[in-house]
Amino acid sequence: MKDFPLLLKSVLYRATTVFSDQEIVTKTGAKMKRYTYLEMAARIAQLAHALDEWGIEPGTHVASFAWNHHRHLELYFAVPCSGRVLHTVNIRLSAEQIVHTINHARDKILFIDEDLVPLFAPLAANLHTVERYVILTDSLTVDVPLPNAISYEAFLQGHATTYEFPDFDEHTPAILGYTSATTGEPKGVIYSHRGLYLHCLSCMTGMLAVDERDVTMPIVPMFHVNAWGRPYTEIWAGAKLVMPGVRPTPADLADLIQQQKVTFSAGVPTVWMGVLEHVRAHREDYDFSHVRLLLSGGAALSQSLTKAYQEELGVTLFQGYGQTETSPVSFVNYPKKRYAALQGDEVYDIRAKTGLLVPGLEMKLVDEAGNTVPHDGVTRGELLLRGPWVIDSYYQAPEETKAAFLDGWFRTGDIATVDEDGYMQIVDRTKDLIKSGGEWISSVDLENVLMSHPDVVEAAVIGVPDEKWQERPLACVVVRADKREHVTSEVLRAYLVEKVAKFWVPDTFVFVDEIPKTSVGKFAKKQLRAQYRSDLH
Amino acid sequence: MKDFPLLLKSVLYRATTVFSDQEIVTKTGAKMKRYTYLEMAARIAQLAHALDEWGIEPGTHVASFAWNHHRHLELYFAVPCSGRVLHTVNIRLSAEQIVHTINHARDKILFIDEDLVPLFAPLAANLHTVERYVILTDSLTVDVPLPNAISYEAFLQGHATTYEFPDFDEHTPAILGYTSATTGEPKGVIYSHRGLYLHCLSCMTGMLAVDERDVTMPIVPMFHVNAWGRPYTEIWAGAKLVMPGVRPTPADLADLIQQQKVTFSAGVPTVWMGVLEHVRAHREDYDFSHVRLLLSGGAALSQSLTKAYQEELGVTLFQGYGQTETSPVSFVNYPKKRYAALQGDEVYDIRAKTGLLVPGLEMKLVDEAGNTVPHDGVTRGELLLRGPWVIDSYYQAPEETKAAFLDGWFRTGDIATVDEDGYMQIVDRTKDLIKSGGEWISSVDLENVLMSHPDVVEAAVIGVPDEKWQERPLACVVVRADKREHVTSEVLRAYLVEKVAKFWVPDTFVFVDEIPKTSVGKFAKKQLRAQYRSDLH
Repeated sequence: MKDFPLLLKSVLYRATTVFSDQEIVTKTGAKMKRYTYLEMAARIAQLAHALDEWGIEPGTHVASFAWNHHRHLELYFAVPCSGRVLHTVNIRLSAEQIVHTINHARDKILFIDEDLVPLFAPLAANLHTVERYVILTDSLTVDVPLPNAISYEAFLQGHATTYEFPDFDEHTPAILGYTSATTGEPKGVIYSHRGLYLHCLSCMTGMLAVDERDVTMPIVPMFHVNAWGRPYTEIWAGAKLVMPGVRPTPADLADLIQQQKVTFSAGVPTVWMGVLEHVRAHREDYDFSHVRLLLSGGAALSQSLTKAYQEELGVTLFQGYGQTETSPVSFVNYPKKRYAALQGDEVYDIRAKTGLLVPGLEMKLVDEAGNTVPHDGVTRGELLLRGPWVIDSYYQAPEETKAAFLDGWFRTGDIATVDEDGYMQIVDRTKDLIKSGGEWISSVDLENVLMSHPDVVEAAVIGVPDEKWQERPLACVVVRADKREHVTSEVLRAYLVEKVAKFWVPDTFVFVDEIPKTSVGKFAKKQLRAQYRSDLH
Repeated sequence: MKDFPLLLKSVLYRATTVFSDQEIVTKTGAKMKRYTYLEMAARIAQLAHALDEWGIEPGTHVASFAWNHHRHLELYFAVPCSGRVLHTVNIRLSAEQIVHTINHARDKILFIDEDLVPLFAPLAANLHTVERYVILTDSLTVDVPLPNAISYEAFLQGHATTYEFPDFDEHTPAILGYTSATTGEPKGVIYSHRGLYLHCLSCMTGMLAVDERDVTMPIVPMFHVNAWGRPYTEIWAGAKLVMPGVRPTPADLADLIQQQKVTFSAGVPTVWMGVLEHVRAHREDYDFSHVRLLLSGGAALSQSLTKAYQEELGVTLFQGYGQTETSPVSFVNYPKKRYAALQGDEVYDIRAKTGLLVPGLEMKLVDEAGNTVPHDGVTRGELLLRGPWVIDSYYQAPEETKAAFLDGWFRTGDIATVDEDGYMQIVDRTKDLIKSGGEWISSVDLENVLMSHPDVVEAAVIGVPDEKWQERPLACVVVRADKREHVTSEVLRAYLVEKVAKFWVPDTFVFVDEIPKTSVGKFAKKQLRAQYRSDLH
């Protein structure tokens, strides 16, 4: 008991012992690549042998630069289970950030999707440590402008299909990821086997639980925070996996949900907005009645979006919360039984709460002086987290670590309340409050109210300088395509004035087609500020 | 992340932070004692302070001798979370075994139910280490024939209602239990904080998962294998708990399920038979349509029982499997989706399988030489288990440890098959096969076939000496009260001959009112053998 380490190979063990003929399907162009858990395990073994043969030492950083597909899944197991560390490079970072993270991680070998080679090739000359490239493609041969390149299938070919994965310390690093960095350089986060094991076990409980009867589709990218742990979690539970493959469009995702009879899927709000807009435009083509639950995370889920899914598609879209630093899941929305009888919009009031703390973590709300504030649903504080899958330092970044941690607690940078029912609600970012005439205005609150308008698809609120009030809110709004003529500044102003303090109502509404986003789907407020502050002055 | 220990206080943390006003109700005579998680936590804090004040050092063994109720639950948290070890003494052991286990554990203080004092008092003089007694009763004063006795309520009185539970090594012992010992002396099993934490997290997944909307009733006793981890699991998940209290009868349990609107409960087959018989006799008084799932474990669940629950009460009764040495849960029956379309008795064929391995454990089937045998649904082997909540030694018992473990694997002593779908099926005990004319007969198979007869309530098969065949099977059978005239040896012989090899059909059927059981509800075959071998010779 004492000496039995918590390692990711436990996931693979149960998957192949109990669910050996369960399927994993990957969208590959117009076709679906299909194989079983057992066939996956055979290829994972081959991959581990190939890494051995190439002399890739235990502890070596092995990079991936890839979408969600079966080969990436094989890397997710073979690399850490054989004692190496998988650095999942975020393909949506800027070119400079991509180069920075690979050099910072000192990756020795990089596995890359064939279709990403054109994007990546110009950067190769700036990489200091990468010695070889393995191209994720069906072909056995490759012709790419990268040095020492081999096809993944050729790399695997001929190797034995079983592998004795070793035992080692459960604190051994398994995955290395970098934050999406709204400020400064991306920071590295090391996930240990133990941390991922515990995170996944916690993600197998409550609203996040799936089982062998489920068909799950992790839309959230495997190049960012382990796709929220979904692939490991879903395989541990024995579910059928649908991998959306290379550059899925909203139409692709809607089609996969429909054709593969997906019952559980996870993605950011932007993805769910895209799927909704597509389905609305082709209503007669889709019937989502087989869908059990859709998880939204990475940014706040608006009431209008969850309402649209429920009322137009009959599907429950619910939210979770987390960060790169927390593996990521820390809160999941769950309607307590006292709310079972709610009707109409009250249902969505509950769904709009960020969520309940998952089993295993601890939370704290603190004021600016670091004092704990009460859980009364009103008092705001910065949300701090700790637990077995919350990191306590950044990878080789002592200064950044110092700034982000407080007595072993991770400072999320989010301002939250916790009510007496235990529901945590994010109300703002520490650096995202607007100070108008000495009073605080919450941009997140304003966004939520704007997005509760049935015709508003997205809304981002920023502070812009003001001579009289120091700062005033400005709202960037995306309106449903078929309602753009009707939803004017006056309409929104009238809507808001019913719901928030009068001085909160933005002076300016900017109507846009799309709100710029960070690599992981959060509103890119830095970019908005740069644009609208200068536009106005 | 690395330094965050897996401790049972995490369960209490989430319970009181997220589900503070959830209820725990305990049957106390004709009344129900009710309080919230938060009120429970306050009393747990008082109990920890009281233990401190009495100078009970960290690591001290603290015994409980009690039924399932709120005070026992408080001991489950206060004792281990404050660094002591709770020895849950099995009240159903023999007097000698009770004395042996308490002396062997060197318990310093014993918490005992008031109604168990008469049973226990005669043993007190033989205990070498117990210095004080705390009587679990509503009264503030007690008058009992035990030295240094105090009422639990007086023990708690006046202490502070908050307590800072310390951090310590997650491998620290939390609970000490003893096996029910069908042979030899009971053996001690230490559960660490880490082991229980991981076991409970695994028990929050799949078929065992409950949530805040559930009303759960752990019938399985808290004096044996932590009531299968249910109390910890259910409180971590935020469920409403119903504790059946002192000496619950089948009528009490049926009434609690009905009145408290229980949705999930766990008990041994004998309990479920008793509840069924009671409900059958008072059919108009019960409606169990609110019940979501009933878990049966500790002994094989017969097809006739699960069928009766489904068809007479509309309730799914499913089985799990485990041992004292495995915390206990290792397998849970779960119908894979390919069986969703099954109709009629085929449904119960699937439910009769022992189950699928839970996330986190590893299994192996070995032949007599210790070689692994295949998972083909046919080849039998002894089932070995290992994992983070499977022990690797008995408490201070090196000889017993040597006999029960093989290269770090726990030898369950059960003979099993595993089919290609991953379903494990117990087919016999290593010491429970019957050898007739050089051929093996499986007593467990025979029992299962007998118990699939709609009028057979229970059946136990043993081998008895035979001059010609060396050994022949003898079946002890309990028939439904209203069918006793009709179900004769001839009827059962005719039933069996259709279903098993002719030489398997027992020569003798003994009709009894009840089959003797061990302290945890397993058939007491040793006792049957002693009785019928001598009766016949």
